[in-house]
Amino acid sequence: MAAAAAGEGFRPLDEGILVEYIRATPALREVLGGRVGDGELTIKEVGDGNLNFVYIVLSPAGSVVIKQALPYVRCVGESWPMTKERAYFETLALREHGNLCPDHVPEVYHFDRTMSLMGMRYLKPPHIILRKGLIAGIEYPLLAEHMSEYIAKTLFFTSLLYHSTLEHRRAVAEFCGNVELCRLTEQVIFSDPYRVSQHNRWTSPFLDKDAEAIREDDELKLEIAGLKSMFCERAQALIHGDLHTGSIMVTSDSTQVIDPEFAFYGPMGYDIGALIGNLILAFFAQDGHANGENNREGGSHQVARGAPVVVTTMETGGSDRWCRWLSTSGTDEVHLNLLVVQQYKKWILKTIEDTWNLFHKKFLSLWNEHKDGPGEAYLFSIYDKSELFQRAQQIYMKDLFHDSLGFGAAKMIRRIVGIAHVEDFESIQDHPKRADCERQALGFAKMLLKQRRQFTTINEITAALESI
Amino acid sequence: MAAAAAGEGFRPLDEGILVEYIRATPALREVLGGRVGDGELTIKEVGDGNLNFVYIVLSPAGSVVIKQALPYVRCVGESWPMTKERAYFETLALREHGNLCPDHVPEVYHFDRTMSLMGMRYLKPPHIILRKGLIAGIEYPLLAEHMSEYIAKTLFFTSLLYHSTLEHRRAVAEFCGNVELCRLTEQVIFSDPYRVSQHNRWTSPFLDKDAEAIREDDELKLEIAGLKSMFCERAQALIHGDLHTGSIMVTSDSTQVIDPEFAFYGPMGYDIGALIGNLILAFFAQDGHANGENNREGGSHQVARGAPVVVTTMETGGSDRWCRWLSTSGTDEVHLNLLVVQQYKKWILKTIEDTWNLFHKKFLSLWNEHKDGPGEAYLFSIYDKSELFQRAQQIYMKDLFHDSLGFGAAKMIRRIVGIAHVEDFESIQDHPKRADCERQALGFAKMLLKQRRQFTTINEITAALESI
Ligand SMILES: Nc1ncnc2c1ncn2[C@@H]1O[C@H](COP(=O)(O)OP(=O)(O)O)[C@@H](O)[C@H]1O
Ligand SMILES: Nc1ncnc2c1ncn2[C@@H]1O[C@H](COP(=O)(O)OP(=O)(O)O)[C@@H](O)[C@H]1O
Ligand SMILES: [Mg+2]
Ligand SMILES: [Mg+2]
Ligand SMILES: [Mg+2]
Ligand SMILES: [Mg+2]
Ligand SMILES: [Mg+2]
Repeated sequence: MAAAAAGEGFRPLDEGILVEYIRATPALREVLGGRVGDGELTIKEVGDGNLNFVYIVLSPAGSVVIKQALPYVRCVGESWPMTKERAYFETLALREHGNLCPDHVPEVYHFDRTMSLMGMRYLKPPHIILRKGLIAGIEYPLLAEHMSEYIAKTLFFTSLLYHSTLEHRRAVAEFCGNVELCRLTEQVIFSDPYRVSQHNRWTSPFLDKDAEAIREDDELKLEIAGLKSMFCERAQALIHGDLHTGSIMVTSDSTQVIDPEFAFYGPMGYDIGALIGNLILAFFAQDGHANGENNREGGSHQVARGAPVVVTTMETGGSDRWCRWLSTSGTDEVHLNLLVVQQYKKWILKTIEDTWNLFHKKFLSLWNEHKDGPGEAYLFSIYDKSELFQRAQQIYMKDLFHDSLGFGAAKMIRRIVGIAHVEDFESIQDHPKRADCERQALGFAKMLLKQRRQFTTINEITAALESI
Repeated sequence: MAAAAAGEGFRPLDEGILVEYIRATPALREVLGGRVGDGELTIKEVGDGNLNFVYIVLSPAGSVVIKQALPYVRCVGESWPMTKERAYFETLALREHGNLCPDHVPEVYHFDRTMSLMGMRYLKPPHIILRKGLIAGIEYPLLAEHMSEYIAKTLFFTSLLYHSTLEHRRAVAEFCGNVELCRLTEQVIFSDPYRVSQHNRWTSPFLDKDAEAIREDDELKLEIAGLKSMFCERAQALIHGDLHTGSIMVTSDSTQVIDPEFAFYGPMGYDIGALIGNLILAFFAQDGHANGENNREGGSHQVARGAPVVVTTMETGGSDRWCRWLSTSGTDEVHLNLLVVQQYKKWILKTIEDTWNLFHKKFLSLWNEHKDGPGEAYLFSIYDKSELFQRAQQIYMKDLFHDSLGFGAAKMIRRIVGIAHVEDFESIQDHPKRADCERQALGFAKMLLKQRRQFTTINEITAALESI
């Protein structure tokens, strides 16, 4: 039946509609190896995100993930309308970023604008959401390498370091259409945490004073104003727009970025900051996962089942030692892993350092490679002297570093006193303990937002984190 | 005949085609009081600009100015193609800025996108181009008052201090279409002066070393890179985009801004800087108009005929005394005016000061008035405390001041060593003398571009100018 086929008008999916839709859509039939007959499809809705519906579709000969945007915010409901056109921009960005960095972006097989429906590569188990891996204490030795590659490539190639201004303004104009999603960010990240808002929440009553202090902090409000203006005005590159650790799926050797529905031409530092800020949140949450009552066992068992684990050391003794069980992918074999929280925190810090430092290296190496290319920001005919060129790069990277720290801090703050929290903290059942972790994170974020210009290297940041 | 009527395809105007066009176009017939019959129309092509064709059309019962863009740069010819769609963006901007500041923007009567043709209010004599008035040494006592109002209103109301981000991004997207004109600016202002380019010229051989020094000045190149990126990336407000003294028509009591074909959403400082930078150029040109061989007489007679002149003092004696004849508007009466160049330079400096200071005052007063309005950059719910709000405004204005100085300096430099020069200097026939003026201006502009962040008030700038 063609009732749900492309071009027939918008219909929210249910399992029946989805099956019919797949059967009527050659690109989806094909990726499922043509095995779309009665009883051949298994469909599971797995959307754990805040906004959309996500279906995993398996056939005997293939698989696909179908994502549909409904005209409201899923986690709030129809009372918070939100254009379903976001699916269009998500698809545009996935395709663009996928072209630039195919190793770390799932392929898009199909898009239907009317249905706000996209079909993409299924990131099979043992892929899990990075945030869940971080909560489970899993080390991803290639994470920094992969993510630095993703941000370096997607940001460099969509900036004026590679774009002509002609190409750039055309693309900027197109993504201006994603304004509703930008407005959501403006509200929940740059506004609500700094004022009384019905959407704000925090670990009450423990953080009541802390949340109030944010709303009373003039220095913070002056800093956030500058960042908000930059977010609204500066079309520096095609950014993902929501690059937290819940938008990254990982295994020990694969890193995949999903969910760029907030994509638009904005400041690069917003993406870099999102990633680093969320890694810092994971860092501060570790102590909450470590205590006896609420150790990692349950969470990790549930979350990371099937994920290959890198066990770097076995330790005994010490008060923050903990243990957990993980079954490895595809087998029933079970390993007993002992990891020390302090050590995992070190790994997070190392990952933060490596992410920025590798990004820095890769971004500059792309810039060097293409310095005589189509980019029009720094024409080779003007910046041909290598000493001058290097100074220009230093200034650029210094500003980008400070932007990233500022946006990262803003992302941290909003996750503690704003509408949407992170599982890193939410999974800490002991509220006083959770509040302690959050308060430390909040204090660090406030310092970072205000004093970020005093830092010149990422290692100074991780040193500051280590000394807490 | 309807051959040239609206919607019949593009045709470059000549007098015959224009007459037919007017007759076939009700809005134009109307503004000419219906008197468009044989022998009733007088048509004069007066385009003295670089890009387009401008016709003054008079009937016994009305008048109109018709401006048409051809698909190339007029002053270069068909070898430099340039989209005629610029007429569309010029019209959009004239209408938008005209709505916001009707006192200082001519009314648009008619626009025909196919023909790239616009009909607007004829700014009748004694209106002259401000640059010509400045060359003639005419004081315009209301200039700063009027121009500060124009820039305050057009910039404030098209920025996020007044726009919602929804409205803003829509408008930004639309004006992204004017990319070709932006690219012209990028090339001739931010690139060519800093490299060898066939388009560059300067008062040779006198300034050969100075032009070379610009191309070798690493500090300057680092500064111009930052400004170019801001120009390309930052959608702060709907700027005029070409706000030099040749885009302003004046009488002693009227100030009208024309020619916003370069309009787009860019940094506010670009407009403010264009105005201030060109006033500074006028300042530096004065000494060149003052000497015996090449005094103002001829120029002012030709240029300012019919313009009412404000004579503030009569002086005799002194080496820089000069005299000139001006016929006043509508009469044959002739006045002998004696003006002292030093005094005129003081008036220019005063105008520069007043322009910024009045802009500052008016812009902040608009902001205060609308602080609880639709603008989304500084939400009242966050910035309600008046001390905090004032600090936010101070930071905003300080940054805007520095942006303006930077762009102003860039505009000065390009007028001395780039493709398009200003009549202020070009009208100085004595080349060594002209080169002296230009060299001083260039030196000041270089200082300004590099050290602008050390200035905090406009009076420090004018003091620096006065001490030269
Ligand atoms: N391509 C994919 N492969 C496997 N799982 C996916 C894929 N895309 C999304 N998911 C799962 O669906 C969840 C929600 O997807 P996401 O794109 O983040 O939706 P939302 O926009 O609602 O946040 C993810 O957290 C992940 O578990
Ligand atoms: N509305 C007008 N009223 C009177 N004169 C005008 C008007 N518009 C333009 N002009 C004259 O035509 C000249 C060129 O117009 P302008 O808009 O600056 O064209 P261009 O884009 O080619 O620079 C101006 O310098 C001015 O002398
Ligand atoms: Mg998501
Ligand atoms: Mg790779
Ligand atoms: Mg999402
Ligand atoms: Mg002009
Ligand atoms: Mg023009």
